Amino acid sequence: MVIVLEKNISEEKIETIIKKLEEFKFSVHKSTGVEQIVLGAIGVHPTFDIRKVKVLDGVSEVYRITEPYKLASRSFKKENTEININGVIVGGNEIEVMAGPCAIENEDQIFEIAKIVADAGAKILRGGAFKPRTSPYSFQGLGEEGLKLLRKAADENNLVVISELMETKQVHLLEEYVDIIQIGARNMQNFPLLKVVGKSNKPVMLKRGLAARVEDLLMSAEYILASGNPNVILCERGIRTFETYTRNTFDISAIPVIHKRSHLPIIADPSHAIGIRDKVLPMARAAIAAGADGIMIEVHNHPEQALSDGPQSLLPDQFAELMKQIKLIAEVIGRKM
Amino acid sequence: MVIVLEKNISEEKIETIIKKLEEFKFSVHKSTGVEQIVLGAIGVHPTFDIRKVKVLDGVSEVYRITEPYKLASRSFKKENTEININGVIVGGNEIEVMAGPCAIENEDQIFEIAKIVADAGAKILRGGAFKPRTSPYSFQGLGEEGLKLLRKAADENNLVVISELMETKQVHLLEEYVDIIQIGARNMQNFPLLKVVGKSNKPVMLKRGLAARVEDLLMSAEYILASGNPNVILCERGIRTFETYTRNTFDISAIPVIHKRSHLPIIADPSHAIGIRDKVLPMARAAIAAGADGIMIEVHNHPEQALSDGPQSLLPDQFAELMKQIKLIAEVIGRKM
Amino acid sequence: MVIVLEKNISEEKIETIIKKLEEFKFSVHKSTGVEQIVLGAIGVHPTFDIRKVKVLDGVSEVYRITEPYKLASRSFKKENTEININGVIVGGNEIEVMAGPCAIENEDQIFEIAKIVADAGAKILRGGAFKPRTSPYSFQGLGEEGLKLLRKAADENNLVVISELMETKQVHLLEEYVDIIQIGARNMQNFPLLKVVGKSNKPVMLKRGLAARVEDLLMSAEYILASGNPNVILCERGIRTFETYTRNTFDISAIPVIHKRSHLPIIADPSHAIGIRDKVLPMARAAIAAGADGIMIEVHNHPEQALSDGPQSLLPDQFAELMKQIKLIAEVIGRKM
Amino acid sequence: MVIVLEKNISEEKIETIIKKLEEFKFSVHKSTGVEQIVLGAIGVHPTFDIRKVKVLDGVSEVYRITEPYKLASRSFKKENTEININGVIVGGNEIEVMAGPCAIENEDQIFEIAKIVADAGAKILRGGAFKPRTSPYSFQGLGEEGLKLLRKAADENNLVVISELMETKQVHLLEEYVDIIQIGARNMQNFPLLKVVGKSNKPVMLKRGLAARVEDLLMSAEYILASGNPNVILCERGIRTFETYTRNTFDISAIPVIHKRSHLPIIADPSHAIGIRDKVLPMARAAIAAGADGIMIEVHNHPEQALSDGPQSLLPDQFAELMKQIKLIAEVIGRKM
Repeated sequence: MVIVLEKNISEEKIETIIKKLEEFKFSVHKSTGVEQIVLGAIGVHPTFDIRKVKVLDGVSEVYRITEPYKLASRSFKKENTEININGVIVGGNEIEVMAGPCAIENEDQIFEIAKIVADAGAKILRGGAFKPRTSPYSFQGLGEEGLKLLRKAADENNLVVISELMETKQVHLLEEYVDIIQIGARNMQNFPLLKVVGKSNKPVMLKRGLAARVEDLLMSAEYILASGNPNVILCERGIRTFETYTRNTFDISAIPVIHKRSHLPIIADPSHAIGIRDKVLPMARAAIAAGADGIMIEVHNHPEQALSDGPQSLLPDQFAELMKQIKLIAEVIGRKM
Repeated sequence: MVIVLEKNISEEKIETIIKKLEEFKFSVHKSTGVEQIVLGAIGVHPTFDIRKVKVLDGVSEVYRITEPYKLASRSFKKENTEININGVIVGGNEIEVMAGPCAIENEDQIFEIAKIVADAGAKILRGGAFKPRTSPYSFQGLGEEGLKLLRKAADENNLVVISELMETKQVHLLEEYVDIIQIGARNMQNFPLLKVVGKSNKPVMLKRGLAARVEDLLMSAEYILASGNPNVILCERGIRTFETYTRNTFDISAIPVIHKRSHLPIIADPSHAIGIRDKVLPMARAAIAAGADGIMIEVHNHPEQALSDGPQSLLPDQFAELMKQIKLIAEVIGRKM
Repeated sequence: MVIVLEKNISEEKIETIIKKLEEFKFSVHKSTGVEQIVLGAIGVHPTFDIRKVKVLDGVSEVYRITEPYKLASRSFKKENTEININGVIVGGNEIEVMAGPCAIENEDQIFEIAKIVADAGAKILRGGAFKPRTSPYSFQGLGEEGLKLLRKAADENNLVVISELMETKQVHLLEEYVDIIQIGARNMQNFPLLKVVGKSNKPVMLKRGLAARVEDLLMSAEYILASGNPNVILCERGIRTFETYTRNTFDISAIPVIHKRSHLPIIADPSHAIGIRDKVLPMARAAIAAGADGIMIEVHNHPEQALSDGPQSLLPDQFAELMKQIKLIAEVIGRKM
Repeated sequence: MVIVLEKNISEEKIETIIKKLEEFKFSVHKSTGVEQIVLGAIGVHPTFDIRKVKVLDGVSEVYRITEPYKLASRSFKKENTEININGVIVGGNEIEVMAGPCAIENEDQIFEIAKIVADAGAKILRGGAFKPRTSPYSFQGLGEEGLKLLRKAADENNLVVISELMETKQVHLLEEYVDIIQIGARNMQNFPLLKVVGKSNKPVMLKRGLAARVEDLLMSAEYILASGNPNVILCERGIRTFETYTRNTFDISAIPVIHKRSHLPIIADPSHAIGIRDKVLPMARAAIAAGADGIMIEVHNHPEQALSDGPQSLLPDQFAELMKQIKLIAEVIGRKM
């Protein structure tokens, strides 16, 4: 921690601040600058609230110099984390595609879509059984029945399964049916949920919250890692800004930023970021071009009848075209699909 | 719903759009303007996803004309909702103050602070037993032991109790000890949690999320109301913006906006919005001047030793001064304290 | 400047970084922490681009420790700047109100409104002669003719005049007619304009831009101060966020923040921040309660016929009521009106 | 314009609102819905301030149904605007690259960089002679001397020239030396400047402001188009959000959004959006993959000595590599370079 003192501060106040820092278990280093005195407080206390120093009399600014996350950081682990899910490796050289409907609606729907997904070459099937909906009057998902259908449809097409967990008490139910547990954007800071999946032996995909800085996303990943689960996949899906022509602002630059700060794989979800079908293809291409380790795409055989998020779902032939295009872009940057 | 069609659209496309709207159970009304044709789709479907119409060929813009929330709206209920909690009425003419430490730390701490709070004239004691912390390494609260101490300290000082619920499974535990259940900002869209408190017979205080529009806050209130609990108190505590000199941006204008849109009471929490003690007093005054039905303030007897949020907690004498000042402001706008 | 080095950095890289810093004319101070080495770069170079150090091999984080503004800072000048404009003092104990129409439209309009403003007790008349309009098809102001009318209406009512400057070449024209030159939010970083008013002998009111941090506002003030004009008044008028129920988000907490960081007076403009008449009164009260040195309010005798911003203009009796209420709030916090 | 009335509104109030709309020169169409009455106000008044209706008694919501811009809209002009600048066509199938230093510093620098730019295959040379700097103490550009050097360096390498205009009075000076006039992000709503370049016969590149919605950008383009200059190039360069690990948030989704809404070409500037060299390459690739008509890149032969924005400038070999990679991506999406 670095503490910048106010200009013309008295010796007495400096002494009081130094004493306080020592009480907080820091060893203190004093540098006298041209205009200001700077204190270096040495010692590793990742959870120390720096505002405790900010409020001291005579302190002008305080900077934390260590990242607040540790296990999630690139400085803790240099090599990329590769997560092997029944032979599908997320975080390696190959780009992985997660595709499927927003919500599982019935047997025909999920079986048809699973085949479309597999035929186009994707390896991971998505589908929600428990749906976080902003309106209490909207379709809330099929629950366990949905998970069963999802598993069967995936198995028949040799796909890996991802689905969202919304409550701590459903974690064992999800573990039974899915290969990757998804934590949605609205639950990114639902800490009891993070702790529960941190104890699971299933990989977890953690979506960035609408108001979350990349630092916050990595702090939430830290919760899962610190609870014992090393297999965390991050997912960029758009942040909330003042722009109104798109649903959210898809922060593609978070992809190279995360690759620099962390060893964890990062997936991009253009469907949720943009919210309208005709922008999904260019944004998927952009995410791959920026270095994403994979993408998550909503696909529906009859989007106009979908119970949830139909308007942002791709039609089967649009999805096949997307797969073709991103494969070519992957090759440009030396990756496979 | 109002649908603006593209300029120079063919008759055939118009027919297709109208047929589609009728399939969605709307009756359709066509107006031919100078430059564009506008369709009115009449019928009340609060959960209809308007993007289903946006993606139709020939459609330029779509506007939902009914608010997506109903029970929470002022048009549903004209009079202010007043919530009587053991004689303390939130949402009436009297302004109520909720005060106490961020987290309950031990018996001495909570008893001393409860006395300070009561002596200064506040009627509601706050204190966290389960703490949502961005770092997994931070103090996470005393749990049930904390709730017991909080209850005892409140009873001894004739105070009403508010504390935060973080998990569905703890709801009965909280109901046993507290008078108002708080839902924190990070859980504003934790829908299972909203449903559970919607079934509770305790009043609920719902904090606005960092990325939540006022509309989203009212939609989350709708979840609780629709589940059967009419006693919802809203709370503004700052939104996330690009400004860095304050922790969050305290959106005080949300107070009159909510009073116009909804009948529910609205409380302001300047401590969390600003994050540093010396701005809490002016922001508390501002919130009351803007018409807030109450404020929530962090108070600590030894903030420099607090296990959580000490730097934003007021000292006892600062709190007493705040009570004095906001009482005078309350009088200016014709309210009591 | 404080430079945090990467963990396990080689001695050679450290040497290279230190050499580089010395080339940049800093003297360097090295602290070895538990996990990381920190360099203090001592020397005052307010315009140094810290990214020059960020890109060096082995550097993890860089923090500037001096504020980038100097003349605008409270550490440069401890006492509040009081600006005397023909006997009206902005920045003193008295709260000043600037009121009038958005745009000057004709003689009758501005004379009637000037009288309303003076009768209600305000001392400064506002009115735009050159209007920044987002649409090229909107009314752009009366130009010099408007300034003449504004001056005459003010003189007849013993008021001080403020009006907006939009182009460097109009500065002498404005100086002829107005007492305070306003720089609008959209021109906050129009640097040639800032330099020109920096050479003027008239006080300048500088409005915060929609995307400006408080730091940016103070940097723009620095431009004016550094050009030789010490009489700068700051103005908070709302920032752009994701909220859609209000036109902008009125950042009232900027008021105490600016009072702490700077010696310059700060005015609040609730009319532009909120954009709709019925929220102006509560927000004006809130701004005064937060410590603003004054407010700017749009008033119109026939708002429904106003050529610009009628919907956010107060009616004469609403304005009189506002003056009464904020006077009472001013007294609560020990200020006069 | 569509006006939703309050529920249970009296016939009398409806009459008053209709009469008012007719006074505003709209013809009115009334639809009676299940719960609410909706009025359609027909007539084209692009500059009508809809808040004039919002404030009427009995009105609940108002929606403008025509876009506020006309000449800039895709509905006004279906085909892409292609701008031919001495044989270099912006907005056609070929992707164009604008590259060069942030600021022109001296003859050697600009000649060396111009050669690097041309050798790598780019056709447009950028370089600032007048620099908008947030600090008054920073290097402000060489002025006319810089423009002369820029022109000579471009001519020697057969390049087209773009440079920024900051003040209306410099427009003729710029016209003498440059082929494309740039309006910077901070001047996007400097309306006198927009009008002046609207009268120029040179193409204009208009950068999106930090707080500008796409709609605002198109409104500013409308100013230039309405003043008579049809050759406007738009430029996305990042918006301001709460994220702190990047300088701005590069809104790549604006690219397909603008292509849908407008016929004008759109260029992406990843250097300014990101602010640090090592993210420029992936973001340039992403912009091209998203469909940008070109990119603007800062290149410097000695970035560590650059007087402005060195840290975000690419080294010559990084730039050559970028050119190679984006050429391949251009081919994937059927475009040339």
